[in-house]
Amino acid sequence: MQTKTFRELVSLQKAQRLCRQRLGNHRVDTERLSLQEAVGRGLSVAVSVRTPLPHFPRAIRDGYAVRARDTFSASPTNPVVLQLTDTVHIGHAPDFVVKPGQAAQIPTGGMLPAGADAVVMVEYTDPMSADQVQIFRPAAPGQYVQQVGEDIPQNEQALAPGAVLGPAEIALLSALGETEVEVYRRPRVGIISTGDEIVAPQHEPIPVQTRDANAYGLAAACRDNGSEPILFGIVRDDADELLSTAGAALGNCDLLLISGGSSAGTQDITRQVLAELTMDEVFIDGIALRPGKPTIVAAHDEKLIFGLPGHPVSALIVFHRLVRPVIGWLIGTEVHDPTQIAQVTRNIPSEAGLTEYVRVKLRRDGDQLWAQPIFGKSASLSTLAQTDGFIEIATGIEGLIEGEQTPVILWR
Amino acid sequence: MQTKTFRELVSLQKAQRLCRQRLGNHRVDTERLSLQEAVGRGLSVAVSVRTPLPHFPRAIRDGYAVRARDTFSASPTNPVVLQLTDTVHIGHAPDFVVKPGQAAQIPTGGMLPAGADAVVMVEYTDPMSADQVQIFRPAAPGQYVQQVGEDIPQNEQALAPGAVLGPAEIALLSALGETEVEVYRRPRVGIISTGDEIVAPQHEPIPVQTRDANAYGLAAACRDNGSEPILFGIVRDDADELLSTAGAALGNCDLLLISGGSSAGTQDITRQVLAELTMDEVFIDGIALRPGKPTIVAAHDEKLIFGLPGHPVSALIVFHRLVRPVIGWLIGTEVHDPTQIAQVTRNIPSEAGLTEYVRVKLRRDGDQLWAQPIFGKSASLSTLAQTDGFIEIATGIEGLIEGEQTPVILWR
Repeated sequence: MQTKTFRELVSLQKAQRLCRQRLGNHRVDTERLSLQEAVGRGLSVAVSVRTPLPHFPRAIRDGYAVRARDTFSASPTNPVVLQLTDTVHIGHAPDFVVKPGQAAQIPTGGMLPAGADAVVMVEYTDPMSADQVQIFRPAAPGQYVQQVGEDIPQNEQALAPGAVLGPAEIALLSALGETEVEVYRRPRVGIISTGDEIVAPQHEPIPVQTRDANAYGLAAACRDNGSEPILFGIVRDDADELLSTAGAALGNCDLLLISGGSSAGTQDITRQVLAELTMDEVFIDGIALRPGKPTIVAAHDEKLIFGLPGHPVSALIVFHRLVRPVIGWLIGTEVHDPTQIAQVTRNIPSEAGLTEYVRVKLRRDGDQLWAQPIFGKSASLSTLAQTDGFIEIATGIEGLIEGEQTPVILWR
Repeated sequence: MQTKTFRELVSLQKAQRLCRQRLGNHRVDTERLSLQEAVGRGLSVAVSVRTPLPHFPRAIRDGYAVRARDTFSASPTNPVVLQLTDTVHIGHAPDFVVKPGQAAQIPTGGMLPAGADAVVMVEYTDPMSADQVQIFRPAAPGQYVQQVGEDIPQNEQALAPGAVLGPAEIALLSALGETEVEVYRRPRVGIISTGDEIVAPQHEPIPVQTRDANAYGLAAACRDNGSEPILFGIVRDDADELLSTAGAALGNCDLLLISGGSSAGTQDITRQVLAELTMDEVFIDGIALRPGKPTIVAAHDEKLIFGLPGHPVSALIVFHRLVRPVIGWLIGTEVHDPTQIAQVTRNIPSEAGLTEYVRVKLRRDGDQLWAQPIFGKSASLSTLAQTDGFIEIATGIEGLIEGEQTPVILWR
């Protein structure tokens, strides 16, 4: 690793493609959940419409149900007068017919009575008496009426497999009466920390020891992205111990993250263990990213195993750019980056041969959002939590100019 | 409502300000959680640093620990030769001193031995023998050494109250050994649906009835935003019934959402009940939004009660723009909008006197992201789930031009 230049490493895009190829069409299992439980999950099958929406013709304005033909000559100066016969009530089927020359009062959501084919908005009417109403505008047939199936026709596909069930999808499924859905279970992500110097966060470190920041940090990132983290603790820099822990973890997980200690020695052990565990090559060995370069990836069947850099900043950035999409693919979806557009507060130089991440703090000044770069070592935890996200400066771009508008990818 | 023009209504910004004023400094209670449970929560107190980070001087590169002064004359053509005495091992305190003219091998993360004050990267060295190493570059004192407290000094504030605990914050807290934190509990949001025509999603509606899309849709939005929805079912268009259900709900919630039926009649009942319940005026009665205009807000002590429009599209948009920030304020945080920048595929006209929301579908074409407006009635559920988010066209802007870059606010 030490000797590879960025030019010899795969790009982030290529690394993503390689991971995707290894996964192929593999998905995690599915389970059947209630709509309340299914929030944020990925749908595993298409949902088709059993009852059309709406399933009766309904008014979409408050006003009068009329026969459109009766209103064709209406104008503000020469209104049509219709006989007011009945009232439609919300939730009740009208038991009358609107005959030529008649109108019935109707509220939004009310069922259009037989005979009527349009609704005139109340604003363009004037009741002359209890049984007569003036109409000041002609109504086209079908005006302000939502026909049966107009929103969603019967048998149409309402949602495709892979749809992530957010508020909009849940609202739609509720309206369709689909109160249970088949979704992918949460991918299980195993997390192992390595390094002779690493102790669990709840331990008081003696000098030379460092508390593990990666296990809980990565677990939080997993939860934020709809997966279920499973922590397998801290393994010393020992190939046998790592092989045994990683092997056991693989049996229980869809994906395994091994965050390296800080030294090159730990990375070497992880590389060796991954090769042994998968009886295969490590298919990604370093990525042209900064930070994040010493990332390695291997696959055991369809289970990807990531050797992540030890520095928390690097580990979380690689999680965001590479592991996060993989979690999405396991449930058949594409992930979006949560982004804010901001103006950079100063020039940011970058090397052209790699994808570079610059952490930034967002600051609002009136209507303008500013992104202030925080240049800290990737070992620096203080800068991590001070920042709101990062700017991705792609390969081939030499940097950003002060005042340039650029997307800031938020940590969450 | 029917007769108010957009010009007579408060703007979204003013509505947000009014809600914030009513809340004042009110926050929900706090609870103590483990780091694993605290993901996504808002911190209620500042966290200060008990152990500085790092708590021992450590190398941040693989190389040789040296006394910087010894290397000042080093150059590629005229290297300095140092005596190689010892090796620092990760996780072990060095039990030796680097004396003048000496160097010790050290890995990244290793503790700097006494005597040494800098690290020379392995790339700029060449071991001549088992006990001699050539140094080709001078090292400044402190080079590649992270000093005690350099990342975060002792007693410094690591996180401020209101910080939302994402992966970065959780990683930082792990490193600091703060494995339990005081966070705000999830705000409890009561949800009531109203309307004589509304039936629960699990029921087969007879003609004239409509399944409730709002309760589960809003509940999903609540979950997406770190709050706990509590469903109080469907109430008919009856003021007494709504008053009793809303009163009971208020006792159990921090915030109450009443989604109206589709008709003006239902809205009138909600307005009347809110005024009675709060013994106060409805302080927001209509907002210059489209969709979302018939939104009303009242307050009972510090509990805000929202009367949301009945159409699911409108209800979810008002949730996103008004309720979501309020949930954030209840836990002391500001919410970000999840945004993607896209080019609009066509001209989008808009009225200048109101904030308008246009639902869009995102489509990637090479490097370019396109936002295609989906114009559907706000009663349309099909367009809701087809779209990825919406464009907010602010008051005073007359629309967007084809090809214009604009932020798309994602549903989630």
